[in-house]
Amino acid sequence: MTRIDSFKSIIDKYEVVFFDAFGVLKNYGGLLPGIENTFAYLQEQGKEYYIVTNDASRSPVQLAESYTSKGLMAITPDRIISSGMLTKEYLDLKVNDGIVAYLGTPDSAHYIDSSGLHTLPISEVNESNIDRVNALVFLDDEGFDWGRDLNKSVNLMRKRTIPAIVANTDQAYPLTKHDVSIAIGGLASMIEKIVGKAFIRFGKPDSQMFMFAYDLLRERRAISKKDIVMVGDTLQTDILGGNKFGLDTVLVLSGNTQAKDAENRITSTGIVPTYICDSAVVELGGFAF
Amino acid sequence: MTRIDSFKSIIDKYEVVFFDAFGVLKNYGGLLPGIENTFAYLQEQGKEYYIVTNDASRSPVQLAESYTSKGLMAITPDRIISSGMLTKEYLDLKVNDGIVAYLGTPDSAHYIDSSGLHTLPISEVNESNIDRVNALVFLDDEGFDWGRDLNKSVNLMRKRTIPAIVANTDQAYPLTKHDVSIAIGGLASMIEKIVGKAFIRFGKPDSQMFMFAYDLLRERRAISKKDIVMVGDTLQTDILGGNKFGLDTVLVLSGNTQAKDAENRITSTGIVPTYICDSAVVELGGFAF
Amino acid sequence: MTRIDSFKSIIDKYEVVFFDAFGVLKNYGGLLPGIENTFAYLQEQGKEYYIVTNDASRSPVQLAESYTSKGLMAITPDRIISSGMLTKEYLDLKVNDGIVAYLGTPDSAHYIDSSGLHTLPISEVNESNIDRVNALVFLDDEGFDWGRDLNKSVNLMRKRTIPAIVANTDQAYPLTKHDVSIAIGGLASMIEKIVGKAFIRFGKPDSQMFMFAYDLLRERRAISKKDIVMVGDTLQTDILGGNKFGLDTVLVLSGNTQAKDAENRITSTGIVPTYICDSAVVELGGFAF
Amino acid sequence: MTRIDSFKSIIDKYEVVFFDAFGVLKNYGGLLPGIENTFAYLQEQGKEYYIVTNDASRSPVQLAESYTSKGLMAITPDRIISSGMLTKEYLDLKVNDGIVAYLGTPDSAHYIDSSGLHTLPISEVNESNIDRVNALVFLDDEGFDWGRDLNKSVNLMRKRTIPAIVANTDQAYPLTKHDVSIAIGGLASMIEKIVGKAFIRFGKPDSQMFMFAYDLLRERRAISKKDIVMVGDTLQTDILGGNKFGLDTVLVLSGNTQAKDAENRITSTGIVPTYICDSAVVELGGFAF
Repeated sequence: MTRIDSFKSIIDKYEVVFFDAFGVLKNYGGLLPGIENTFAYLQEQGKEYYIVTNDASRSPVQLAESYTSKGLMAITPDRIISSGMLTKEYLDLKVNDGIVAYLGTPDSAHYIDSSGLHTLPISEVNESNIDRVNALVFLDDEGFDWGRDLNKSVNLMRKRTIPAIVANTDQAYPLTKHDVSIAIGGLASMIEKIVGKAFIRFGKPDSQMFMFAYDLLRERRAISKKDIVMVGDTLQTDILGGNKFGLDTVLVLSGNTQAKDAENRITSTGIVPTYICDSAVVELGGFAF
Repeated sequence: MTRIDSFKSIIDKYEVVFFDAFGVLKNYGGLLPGIENTFAYLQEQGKEYYIVTNDASRSPVQLAESYTSKGLMAITPDRIISSGMLTKEYLDLKVNDGIVAYLGTPDSAHYIDSSGLHTLPISEVNESNIDRVNALVFLDDEGFDWGRDLNKSVNLMRKRTIPAIVANTDQAYPLTKHDVSIAIGGLASMIEKIVGKAFIRFGKPDSQMFMFAYDLLRERRAISKKDIVMVGDTLQTDILGGNKFGLDTVLVLSGNTQAKDAENRITSTGIVPTYICDSAVVELGGFAF
Repeated sequence: MTRIDSFKSIIDKYEVVFFDAFGVLKNYGGLLPGIENTFAYLQEQGKEYYIVTNDASRSPVQLAESYTSKGLMAITPDRIISSGMLTKEYLDLKVNDGIVAYLGTPDSAHYIDSSGLHTLPISEVNESNIDRVNALVFLDDEGFDWGRDLNKSVNLMRKRTIPAIVANTDQAYPLTKHDVSIAIGGLASMIEKIVGKAFIRFGKPDSQMFMFAYDLLRERRAISKKDIVMVGDTLQTDILGGNKFGLDTVLVLSGNTQAKDAENRITSTGIVPTYICDSAVVELGGFAF
Repeated sequence: MTRIDSFKSIIDKYEVVFFDAFGVLKNYGGLLPGIENTFAYLQEQGKEYYIVTNDASRSPVQLAESYTSKGLMAITPDRIISSGMLTKEYLDLKVNDGIVAYLGTPDSAHYIDSSGLHTLPISEVNESNIDRVNALVFLDDEGFDWGRDLNKSVNLMRKRTIPAIVANTDQAYPLTKHDVSIAIGGLASMIEKIVGKAFIRFGKPDSQMFMFAYDLLRERRAISKKDIVMVGDTLQTDILGGNKFGLDTVLVLSGNTQAKDAENRITSTGIVPTYICDSAVVELGGFAF
């Protein structure tokens, strides 16, 4: 289990690679140095890849730009599967009309706009429109006043029997090398407990994220779960979710899980990756000649 | 919300119907009187149907026999999706060799037999074979000695870093009109809490159950989630899971949720079905002429 | 159980009455009309009484003023036991020096000032003083910026191995007839879950609140638990805590628990009061002549 | 924090010592070698001591015999405070008549016998007497058939609105050096979750255990919490409970917490003892003239 594998040799065994984003492809300081080699190798070898991310703060187009603007041209919008996309699918299928109140930035809300639905920041919900609010969506921890708008969310959910959708299941996320920030998933858990209702969650480790990527993949080609490997830095989301969906999994030590803690955490959580690698970077010498 | 809809008029709006089993098709006393009319109507109208059940105690063949032996010939094994089938898929994909220890009856274990794997009751795990045990599966609350074997399961999970799979997420199930029994899902939750590891759960409301049925369906025909309706008697499993997967849902009042409690439970849980019906029985006069 | 008892006849059976404050003595609109009769009767009959409240936002002196300024002179500071008093006792006993960081108003912090300790709003914790912070106290949901200071609290608890004390265990509290507000206890629960450490909680239903009142009482006179009755409007705090401490309990229907819900809630929670009364108001005709 | 203190020098600073039992005074193999020196030193120095234990399986008389029969004569019944004693006090104060059903051995039940109450094993509850059952008590994990009687307990609590008392809050306990056993507290937690009612728990870390000992002590002499130190091997019960009650605390490394894990566990749980010692054994040379 503590064996460190070569990421390149792992790629060679599979047809498709799913990548988590933060802690795998990028970090506080920007892109992981050398990560472009990985995608060059994937393309050279004719392998498919998807980015599977618990990020509902921006659209795939905006997410892709954050890579291409830094020179990683391989991350195109059609390669990105985000929990925000599942939220949009849910709203399309299940909420037919009225207002969708949200917590998040205007960018995050624009993305879930759907025919027949009107998005409204929770701050603008009031007595005149509350009866038309047919869903509450938790998108991002930014873009609203916590003190005022978390309380408004509690009272909206007490007054209206409507679905609450949590588009990012993380409880916290790393902000700098030393500090974390409470994520929208953590705020939503608090509100769910206070109002006592069952919220709907999208995002790893939930299978629906993997299924969404798998479905897109099968539209292009015949594929078995045995041909796909999931790469992530977090046991509780990337590895647990990948394992449960039936995929082989790679824990990389470039993010949330540090080399010195990996074995302890695997033993104490019981979440076991198929492989452990220092990072998802393919060494240049490995394939260039 | 408290409107009671006609089940026949609901069927007319969809191409495919997913049914929960207990509390919907059958009950303590056997089959729901008249439920055969529903399947006659479905077949007459050329609609598809699946039984989606949190039951890992028997194989689809055995489950189907429990209907056909009572005269409901429409429930064939290929129409049944059980959480046991997901467990088997997981073992096929993720556990390559060694012993799978289990809690449950021999019937439940026979069903998860997989090439390369040897199933063993937890009672037979001992010092000579424990190092070859590569998974623990919770299948059924019967077939083992609770006092001895729940403790053996705790100690197995403390000693081995292996996946524990819970093939039925229910905490309890109705035994008679007045009594319930603790389900294997309730026993597994206790053990998970004591050992502090993350167990893998299959069964509604988890999306993977619905995805499995949806995939089978798509092998036969093109279908959209908008064309499928899920019918169940339990808000927290059938309705929550169906909603989250993007399906329209019908709460029937013939099982866990009684007519007098339905509105209160919907409001307090926030789990809202698309429709409410007395039962899934189609009245004969409704289509026979 | 659904029998409605006369509050005056209950007083007659006990030597001492413990009262919850909000929902029992006062409400959104101010004092409960007629509640002064109750205290006149208690004094006439030579009965003792204490107010036992999960309120750490103000000192007993300030809390008492909120009653006496409205004409209820019977509520003197020495009759008030608050969860803030237990927090102060904890700091006196267990934190010997350094800084106590807090979330709450300056009023709430002034109250926990203790010899040798310096209180500091969490907003003023920074790299130059963090190493001297020896406790974090959650006092009130007002007096700080939620977005900034909840995140600062998370990071403080990740960096320092120090006790976190929650001086009010309520998850939410009523703000108006229709709206609630998230309480500091709800915010603290979210942070506890994110940092994964065990916080120390004071406030009903915890026994330490009742013990504190009981000890004060015993300093004045010999008394048995059988001679004390606890009066409250909330099953999960007042009644559960009183029962567990061994006291008889009265549920009043003037606050959180409404008459129409009382029986259902008692049955579903299993928290059973000894008596149920419309309110803690003693009818005037009952003793004046 | 990782400093190892001399247990004798700690005793010298306090007037009273509270000891946990298992892991502190005794272990799988019997009494801790040399522990008799500790009590000889306490008596020589005129210090008071109490054993504060989450053990409801036997009476204080029987518990004391388990020490005196092995030669440790200092542990007399009046020195033992068990969670069973709090259960008995609760029944005396709050349950006036009828039947108390229990899970445990006859020994554990005999101990809670109270005037006016009739104890009955849960296995003997049936339709003819269920209406007279006024409490259910979880005493011990032995003495009953888990498969039959845990289900009977669930159905009793669904049918009767009565208090359920958990006399031992531990989830599991060590059976041998390598194996643990599920404790009655773990079984009770499962049943509480299934029936959805609030059970009443006695035992560390709950303050009521410490209060009971503190009250007995104060009957003998004037004492302040500052003069008492609590000694235990488990952070979540002994140390958390002692800290919360306002006592100084000693973590000993002779039981649940091993030397190699102590620092990690303190940091990750945030439960900080005042001192850490190898064990509660006082070295002989340390006090002989």
